[in-house]
Amino acid sequence: MDVMEAIRTRRSVRIFDTRPVPQELVKRLLAAAMAAPSAGNEQPWHFVTVTEKRLLEEVALILPNAPMAKRAPLGILVCAELSLEKYPGNWVLDCAAAVQNLLLAAHGLGLGAVWTGVYPQKERMDGISRIFGLPPGVLAHTYVPVGWPAGLPRPEDRFRGDRVHENRW
Amino acid sequence: MDVMEAIRTRRSVRIFDTRPVPQELVKRLLAAAMAAPSAGNEQPWHFVTVTEKRLLEEVALILPNAPMAKRAPLGILVCAELSLEKYPGNWVLDCAAAVQNLLLAAHGLGLGAVWTGVYPQKERMDGISRIFGLPPGVLAHTYVPVGWPAGLPRPEDRFRGDRVHENRW
Repeated sequence: MDVMEAIRTRRSVRIFDTRPVPQELVKRLLAAAMAAPSAGNEQPWHFVTVTEKRLLEEVALILPNAPMAKRAPLGILVCAELSLEKYPGNWVLDCAAAVQNLLLAAHGLGLGAVWTGVYPQKERMDGISRIFGLPPGVLAHTYVPVGWPAGLPRPEDRFRGDRVHENRW
Repeated sequence: MDVMEAIRTRRSVRIFDTRPVPQELVKRLLAAAMAAPSAGNEQPWHFVTVTEKRLLEEVALILPNAPMAKRAPLGILVCAELSLEKYPGNWVLDCAAAVQNLLLAAHGLGLGAVWTGVYPQKERMDGISRIFGLPPGVLAHTYVPVGWPAGLPRPEDRFRGDRVHENRW
């Protein structure tokens, strides 16, 4: 799929069929995420791939914005190891770029995915840390349910001319 | 360009030739940025397109990480209007997703671009606000120099198996 088309037509997918996501595709999603730019190329990210039914259900209980997590055959938790930062505070941006790559790659591969926010809500971060046993100094950023879409949301034109300013506000 | 290829081969481009970026392509870059997901679809972003020589030079003076800004024919400042947020604190992630879309779109269109961080450094945010006359409640996030690349950095394989964890850390 063309990159401009992928960007234009990607939507959040929250309903999946029951087929699992092949390991080969999981690796391509992770490689796409890790291809993201980061501050000083610091690459502070780690990824937890989640396929165990019990864990998928626990995530859905912890994240109020992720009831669909338990019906997705795969989840990818994006987190960061703070000691890998060269430029403090940039892990949030680095991981967001990685998540966006992951979402676009999923769409390009015919999968569906949705960004469910963990950071900056402390109670979500703590709950996710507990479920996955994240060590101190590793912070949960985003949880991405992934699967084969059961129906695709229609593309949405979000261009707004009133958000564009030429040379000055 | 295929989306997986775009993600894999995108690199930061810091050296540009002198040709301007046509207005039609500027609009496609902005549309790509605005197609990003955001928390609750809040779309808190604004964009300042920068082509005036004096402004391009001022940015290069203010941002220690953006000396190339003055040699790029175009800059796109990504900022956010905080009152548009539905979920406080998410503007940082929303804008990062928009920036990543913008970078991939630039690459897909044959342009080059580079993410130069403004947030979270307060002095950079203040300096950029002053140059572009951002109103109170609008925060500068990232400045992206854009142009026709004079030479393309080689793709880099950043996949690291040691950053992948199955089901638990």
